[in-house]
Amino acid sequence: MMTPVRYIVLVIGVVISLHFILSVSHEGYGNATSISHLLTQKVDVDSHRAVPDQYYWPDNSTHPVHERRANATIVMLARNSDLKGVVKSIKQLEDRFNKQFRYPYVFLNEEEFNVKFKETITELTDAKVEFGVIPHDHWYQPSWINETRASASREDMVKNNVIYGGAYRNMCRFNSGFFYRHELLAKYKYYWRVEPDVTFFCDLHYDPFLFMQDNEKVYSFTISLPEYTETIPTLWDTVKDFIKENPDLVPADNAMGFLSDDHGETYNRCHFWSNFEIADLDFWRGEAYSKFFEHLDKAGGFYYERWGDAPVHSIGAALLAPKDKLHFFHDIGYRHEPFQHCPMSESHRKGQCWCAPDEDNFDYHWYSCLPKFDKLFA
Amino acid sequence: MMTPVRYIVLVIGVVISLHFILSVSHEGYGNATSISHLLTQKVDVDSHRAVPDQYYWPDNSTHPVHERRANATIVMLARNSDLKGVVKSIKQLEDRFNKQFRYPYVFLNEEEFNVKFKETITELTDAKVEFGVIPHDHWYQPSWINETRASASREDMVKNNVIYGGAYRNMCRFNSGFFYRHELLAKYKYYWRVEPDVTFFCDLHYDPFLFMQDNEKVYSFTISLPEYTETIPTLWDTVKDFIKENPDLVPADNAMGFLSDDHGETYNRCHFWSNFEIADLDFWRGEAYSKFFEHLDKAGGFYYERWGDAPVHSIGAALLAPKDKLHFFHDIGYRHEPFQHCPMSESHRKGQCWCAPDEDNFDYHWYSCLPKFDKLFA
Repeated sequence: MMTPVRYIVLVIGVVISLHFILSVSHEGYGNATSISHLLTQKVDVDSHRAVPDQYYWPDNSTHPVHERRANATIVMLARNSDLKGVVKSIKQLEDRFNKQFRYPYVFLNEEEFNVKFKETITELTDAKVEFGVIPHDHWYQPSWINETRASASREDMVKNNVIYGGAYRNMCRFNSGFFYRHELLAKYKYYWRVEPDVTFFCDLHYDPFLFMQDNEKVYSFTISLPEYTETIPTLWDTVKDFIKENPDLVPADNAMGFLSDDHGETYNRCHFWSNFEIADLDFWRGEAYSKFFEHLDKAGGFYYERWGDAPVHSIGAALLAPKDKLHFFHDIGYRHEPFQHCPMSESHRKGQCWCAPDEDNFDYHWYSCLPKFDKLFA
Repeated sequence: MMTPVRYIVLVIGVVISLHFILSVSHEGYGNATSISHLLTQKVDVDSHRAVPDQYYWPDNSTHPVHERRANATIVMLARNSDLKGVVKSIKQLEDRFNKQFRYPYVFLNEEEFNVKFKETITELTDAKVEFGVIPHDHWYQPSWINETRASASREDMVKNNVIYGGAYRNMCRFNSGFFYRHELLAKYKYYWRVEPDVTFFCDLHYDPFLFMQDNEKVYSFTISLPEYTETIPTLWDTVKDFIKENPDLVPADNAMGFLSDDHGETYNRCHFWSNFEIADLDFWRGEAYSKFFEHLDKAGGFYYERWGDAPVHSIGAALLAPKDKLHFFHDIGYRHEPFQHCPMSESHRKGQCWCAPDEDNFDYHWYSCLPKFDKLFA
């Protein structure tokens, strides 16, 4: 049995405790005004992802074309036969972003674009559009590649059901080491790489190029995942040789933790999915990456194996730049078959995204490498 | 041999002739400044399609939300399970048109929309969104329909491979005679009907509702085609009975020529494809159409056959309104599986359309009824 005095003491104790708990909660939550804000905080814990408010337009629909601009272009490698998919990608990029910003386009092809392609694309945008042909030596298999060995590799991969043949190898090598040297890109510092037949889900109310520039980012992505082992048997050994020979080109605060789970001994095959890239052309053009690409190219793995531009760019960016120069554009909703990144919570609302994050979002899929990227900044 | 005098006369004659030919050409082409303008003129001969310049924004990308507005709404009949297709349609309508105009939305359903549906849709637009439930008696088969006869008809159609069952009949009857009486639509005069999973290809730089209002249009379309015979065996006889009983409700300058190739004796089955409509709610609410719908409804063909809202709306609009109150929105690129309307030439350019008119445009497909509509104004 509880005496009246004990009962009163208990009640006072409970009241004091409640007051204390509530005031602590209030302080703990800072200026939080709603539960949804807390949920957002919980999801977007990674401060390295945040785009400061200053980059956003004050109103979603009435802003004029921005006056402050980056020196940037949207670049697409395409063929005449890709027209339908190119149109789909460009219309969406215009809708989500570029109608308000009018960044110029550069289209590159191994052969001349035809009149229909040029007219159709030019009609879709008020921005400047340039069409370029890739120089022969930037595209085709170099003469010093042993064709007997290269064709044996292609046949091997066909047997192992690894898709894509010789033209795909040319493209991977071009994207890895040549696109940024094309004369039409010479005048630009930043680029947004777009492919045919992709989907953009969210309105972007700020300029991602200015964000890259002001924060000195060199490379960004939306989706990351492991590469097929069969395509890169000797890539990591080749990378390790490069590091040994050029230790001064690898900054101490690099992103090796994204690439390797054992401090560089083996490659975990994680790479940024390079069909989407917003990046700094000068980074590729710089001494470190140029030497890196030369080293890989000489090893011949673009043809003797099937090294993709995704792991090559990713390893280059993760090892040759400090990790804080990499950026995850969590607010750019993006799909390239068969995967998509769909922004969550507050970013989803801000972008009026038309994807469903609870149904299809690769970020925390078991196959996603995003947790390894997050861990770099934990 | 030519004498010098004859030679001089010939030269003078040639000079005069050339001058005459050139000046006539110049007059004939009026203010034409390029060949493409002439091509446009040739394609868009139908002056009844033209939207005057005054409706267009001066600039494609920097205009504010318009101050002068029509009393209009965008309306969609949908189910919770349609969410994905609804999102696709709404995002596109926002991109092509409504982001700049912010016309409110009304969503109607035979049951309550769930929280996920409401939240997802509301997030996609800055416009007001209302969600309504359809009153029981506006949706379900009325008690005076003979169910034995109705179910026999449904089974017959299944045997004849005519798609859609009982719920589809409810929907056709609701769209034909009830949606415009829903309380959420009571405050509006104009509506744009949108369905899940449609595609809009072209940016619309003017307000189609204001165009309808200022030009006293009552009904508009983008695609027209013949209805399946099996779904409407007695519809035209029922319509002819109505005309006989109500000759005063049918204006002399109606659009019978669109519906019938023999002055009303038989129905050519042409109808406006009503999954797209921009129209005047007061026209449906008015005496003529109300009596027309009552007459059809009493005949029971919505259940004893499978009368669609497309032929019912089309016949109502074509017979109960003067033909110049109908409008073909040639500049609204639109796809509802399996057909699409893709604007041509100048309209295509203005709208920065992402469809290919030379590859997929229903307008002059052999199955299209557009030539019959054009002929009304020839």
